[in-house]
Amino acid sequence: MPTSDRLTRQLAFLREIDRLKAVLRRTALIDRSRRENSAEHSWHLAVMAIVLADHAPEDTDINRVIRMLLVHDIVEVDAGDTYVYDATGSAGKAEREKRAADRLFGLLPEDQGREFRALWEELETGRTAEARFAGALDRLTPVLHNAHTAGRSWREHGITADRVIARNSAISKGSMALWEYARSLIEGAVAKGHLAPAGT
Amino acid sequence: MPTSDRLTRQLAFLREIDRLKAVLRRTALIDRSRRENSAEHSWHLAVMAIVLADHAPEDTDINRVIRMLLVHDIVEVDAGDTYVYDATGSAGKAEREKRAADRLFGLLPEDQGREFRALWEELETGRTAEARFAGALDRLTPVLHNAHTAGRSWREHGITADRVIARNSAISKGSMALWEYARSLIEGAVAKGHLAPAGT
Repeated sequence: MPTSDRLTRQLAFLREIDRLKAVLRRTALIDRSRRENSAEHSWHLAVMAIVLADHAPEDTDINRVIRMLLVHDIVEVDAGDTYVYDATGSAGKAEREKRAADRLFGLLPEDQGREFRALWEELETGRTAEARFAGALDRLTPVLHNAHTAGRSWREHGITADRVIARNSAISKGSMALWEYARSLIEGAVAKGHLAPAGT
Repeated sequence: MPTSDRLTRQLAFLREIDRLKAVLRRTALIDRSRRENSAEHSWHLAVMAIVLADHAPEDTDINRVIRMLLVHDIVEVDAGDTYVYDATGSAGKAEREKRAADRLFGLLPEDQGREFRALWEELETGRTAEARFAGALDRLTPVLHNAHTAGRSWREHGITADRVIARNSAISKGSMALWEYARSLIEGAVAKGHLAPAGT
């Protein structure tokens, strides 16, 4: 492919993913002014990967973790954000996101489309230490945001502590230190009445 | 420093930088729905660095470019975004941003504070190939956004083509291919009446 065609495809992709800035998550900003979008969330996660690198297992390739986190939500441009506690939305999620990956990564030159798809699939399947650490950070952020906003999105959606623990115990697969911290935040939220205990 | 103290400082920093999501730039989203914030802009730039890597000079360390772009706007949490064509705002910018870097990077454990500050300073001074490529991407994005929004922020602020060229010709120091493309967009915007010609 001549350079100019290649650049044209790359820029078409970069233009299309601008729409990730309009995909809203359930989580609120820490100042509670509005809901967070998936683009700014991806930035925050990538910075977290740099800052929290020393809590990853030894020999984790943090640069690949960063790339994975930058790319992992791009499918939401077509598929939207699916709330992790929404069973109905979660049912069709895999199929929706696969179609989105086909279209969006298909905008790129073929070699790059394959590279982006591989990064996205690696995080989804969680088969590598990098994917498990990236997944741990992705799970940790809503716990942090809820802890800083008196459990705002948990309370809004009637989520109980057992579901938060069931969802987030996988943080331990990426980093035991971060899971211990997350668990202390979850227990603290229950003690403060910001998160309903199990069975309520 | 024991692990828990270290983690506490890291999380305090990560909490503080959530505020970058509320720092608005002059540039509009491509769908023109609202102005862009500096956090989502940083995400977009980091993805650009991956996608446009083949237009960087050979041997450019793209992973360092990505880290630089993720970190470069964090000082705006305290210092705010300064519009590049605003001479008054630009006057105190260096001092404002230096104070912001002292406070914000000072929240981190000392070794990481130094690492973040070095990344930020590297981009500011533009002394390495990585910094020049990162700077080229940072300049290119407003040109792309203006090209996609009929010159919205240029027209709103009465910016003329000679100023856009003077500001952006430094893209050529990071990537000649990207500067040639940017110049064609600027000329196209003048031809379409989306950017006022020099001396108007």
